[in-house]
Amino acid sequence: MISLKERINNEGIVLNNSILKVDAFLNQQIDPDLLMEIGREFYLRFQGKKIDRILTVEASGISVALTTGLLMHVPVVFGRKQRSVLINEESYQTKVFSFTKKKTSTVVVLKKFLPPGENVLILDDFLAMGEASMGLADLVHQAGSEVVGIGIVIEKSFQTGRQRLVDAGYQVESLARIKKFENNKVIFED
Amino acid sequence: MISLKERINNEGIVLNNSILKVDAFLNQQIDPDLLMEIGREFYLRFQGKKIDRILTVEASGISVALTTGLLMHVPVVFGRKQRSVLINEESYQTKVFSFTKKKTSTVVVLKKFLPPGENVLILDDFLAMGEASMGLADLVHQAGSEVVGIGIVIEKSFQTGRQRLVDAGYQVESLARIKKFENNKVIFED
Repeated sequence: MISLKERINNEGIVLNNSILKVDAFLNQQIDPDLLMEIGREFYLRFQGKKIDRILTVEASGISVALTTGLLMHVPVVFGRKQRSVLINEESYQTKVFSFTKKKTSTVVVLKKFLPPGENVLILDDFLAMGEASMGLADLVHQAGSEVVGIGIVIEKSFQTGRQRLVDAGYQVESLARIKKFENNKVIFED
Repeated sequence: MISLKERINNEGIVLNNSILKVDAFLNQQIDPDLLMEIGREFYLRFQGKKIDRILTVEASGISVALTTGLLMHVPVVFGRKQRSVLINEESYQTKVFSFTKKKTSTVVVLKKFLPPGENVLILDDFLAMGEASMGLADLVHQAGSEVVGIGIVIEKSFQTGRQRLVDAGYQVESLARIKKFENNKVIFED
């Protein structure tokens, strides 16, 4: 997705050749028009698949899932990273370790928002080690549903996440695949 | 907004005549089509105003702000409820007390995403005591910008938030105004 790669090149900030910050258009400031383009791209890549529901995780996944959901006309559900005191119904839970933040969080979804027997598309902003995506897939399986595929906005292809997801049998669609960081610049795949 | 009130009546859950849960279409499961309607309504209510930017707070504000931003074609910025270890640039911060969760959180926005001299629309899912909205307005003022108005999806009109915002000089537009809860049912204004 060319416009996305341009935004990463122009507005992304690479720290220590390891962390890419895209706060300027995805993770804190959101460009609605770019997000709509991202949604359209996911819509096209998963076209023809039966999709009942989109699952993501707060906070940065929400905007990605919402614009995709607008085009697919399916409900969007986002996992919460910690249990709210308001939630007392039964929920599915999974533990996700963030290598960036160096902490484990529990992602929680109320059971009633993940019915059994559905085809669920997982969407997230980043793929690195695959922790978040595998956690979301775990929630789908706990619910007795199927993972249709996994859509990622930015993939760090030099890390093991994609292989982990492919080995687990999932179709992975990433809109920007980063081969490496060099001199704090982004080098994309092909 | 009739469709919103119908969803609140049909899918909202009132606990102890005091807490309204709208997880089914706004706070955990999101109906993209309803969110687009909400965005359109905010677009109409603030039409004719010069708006440079929309400010909200994670997580539930994001979807509301995004669909509104899609129609206004302005950037959306969301405050984070705690400082991420990745954030080390200068940020604006404000403390917000949640009467529902009975805890204070710090809402943080990077300064570069709230430039001075702008007209900022504040959007949020709920208005009760006005804590979150006043906090977001505080961030706008710290940035040296103006609050154009405050758009709220669901207002608890029996609490003091609206008056607090009106007394501070803000235009408040709420899409569903709740007069009271009675037998765990919602009674709307007019």
